[in-house]
Amino acid sequence: MRNIKLTVAYDGTDYYGFQEQRGTGLPTIQEVLEAALSKMAGSCIQVYGAGRTDSGVHARGQVVNFDCTNWPVPTERLPLAINGALPNDIAAVKAEDAAPDFHARFSAQGKTYLYRVYNHNIPSPFENRYSHYMPSFLDTAAMAKAAAFLEGTHDFKTFQAANSPVRNTVRTIFQTSVYRESNVIHFSLSGDGFLYNMVRIITGTLLEIGQGKRSPASMSDTIAARDRTAAGPTVPGRGLFLEKVYYN
Amino acid sequence: MRNIKLTVAYDGTDYYGFQEQRGTGLPTIQEVLEAALSKMAGSCIQVYGAGRTDSGVHARGQVVNFDCTNWPVPTERLPLAINGALPNDIAAVKAEDAAPDFHARFSAQGKTYLYRVYNHNIPSPFENRYSHYMPSFLDTAAMAKAAAFLEGTHDFKTFQAANSPVRNTVRTIFQTSVYRESNVIHFSLSGDGFLYNMVRIITGTLLEIGQGKRSPASMSDTIAARDRTAAGPTVPGRGLFLEKVYYN
Repeated sequence: MRNIKLTVAYDGTDYYGFQEQRGTGLPTIQEVLEAALSKMAGSCIQVYGAGRTDSGVHARGQVVNFDCTNWPVPTERLPLAINGALPNDIAAVKAEDAAPDFHARFSAQGKTYLYRVYNHNIPSPFENRYSHYMPSFLDTAAMAKAAAFLEGTHDFKTFQAANSPVRNTVRTIFQTSVYRESNVIHFSLSGDGFLYNMVRIITGTLLEIGQGKRSPASMSDTIAARDRTAAGPTVPGRGLFLEKVYYN
Repeated sequence: MRNIKLTVAYDGTDYYGFQEQRGTGLPTIQEVLEAALSKMAGSCIQVYGAGRTDSGVHARGQVVNFDCTNWPVPTERLPLAINGALPNDIAAVKAEDAAPDFHARFSAQGKTYLYRVYNHNIPSPFENRYSHYMPSFLDTAAMAKAAAFLEGTHDFKTFQAANSPVRNTVRTIFQTSVYRESNVIHFSLSGDGFLYNMVRIITGTLLEIGQGKRSPASMSDTIAARDRTAAGPTVPGRGLFLEKVYYN
């Protein structure tokens, strides 16, 4: 039995998220990957993903693993072999042999997410699928100052989608960064784990800070509130990218 | 009567080109623009486009003009007003009052087109709509050397789609450039006019040169042949962008 670790990239626009939606008939990344891999292996392959990205969310460095016996190609050649069988909006980037107990999700030590905001008075047709559009002025320095309050170990309950069943809401954020490159504001966040919608709710809060509706220092109280209503809105999935998953 | 010059950008992926396809029911850029402008003006507006971009071809600087009488907003505010009524893959970038005899197509002195090729052994899901994918090595220096033969006034009949009714196939190319930026090869071409499929056939020929199937110096004979079969294939529309239209 080989356990293969596969890094994949995808444009999530036309998918209902990563995870299989059993019986719904909605296309998901997981199902498309499994179909292509199973066809190649000649047997039913189930993949385990590191992050369950939502509808419309993208990935440049999603990681999945799968067990297989009869694998027809050397591991390192798997991306080239499988990319011909995948649609153009999903690509296998890298394949490696992993330890038998490696699990894409449970072995992960951390992840980096990126949120992109297109900030200009004229929208860009080429950014529409890959960013959230905000025409009004955004103060990136204020956003960066506020984002720094997130670093460290905190209870992030404020930034968890309401009604989430997850009880332990303490997570550690290793690093945040906010910067503008031409008309695109990038907000990146690395941490040991993320609650449901956490990056999108934090981004919604940072955007209110960028617009001057909240002060950068208010982020401290917002975290302490442990209350979803203390935070800003959940921004759309289209601006979100799972950039990288970290393993030991 | 005001004559308005409007610069528009669009992601052409989901359209059957710029030009209205009367009676076919296929969506085109022209029809979508006309519908949005007509609704705003309260009367039927017809637009004239500088370039009839094909199915799947994009524009960052397409120019259209239209005459109107009852226009409800100042010209400079037109983009903001109309963008709310346009789909996210089409944007009005800039509006100006033009001379009464200004015509987007007939007044144009030249255009710049850009062709993008994604050149890496792993395809990118995020480049799929906006580039032609070529995994094999491409020698950009050889391509640039070949492209230089195109500069000046030549009969470009070789690079015109077969069966085109256009008789005068002499055009002037002002400038060419070929460069790589990360995994994307950019080929840009400025000239006083372009034959049907000219940029896409030239690019197909340059890509054969980049792969070593033709020498850079062979471009001179290829131009002189005045024969479509002497050139390379027509590359897909997805990599092509109408960048800019020039006026006096």
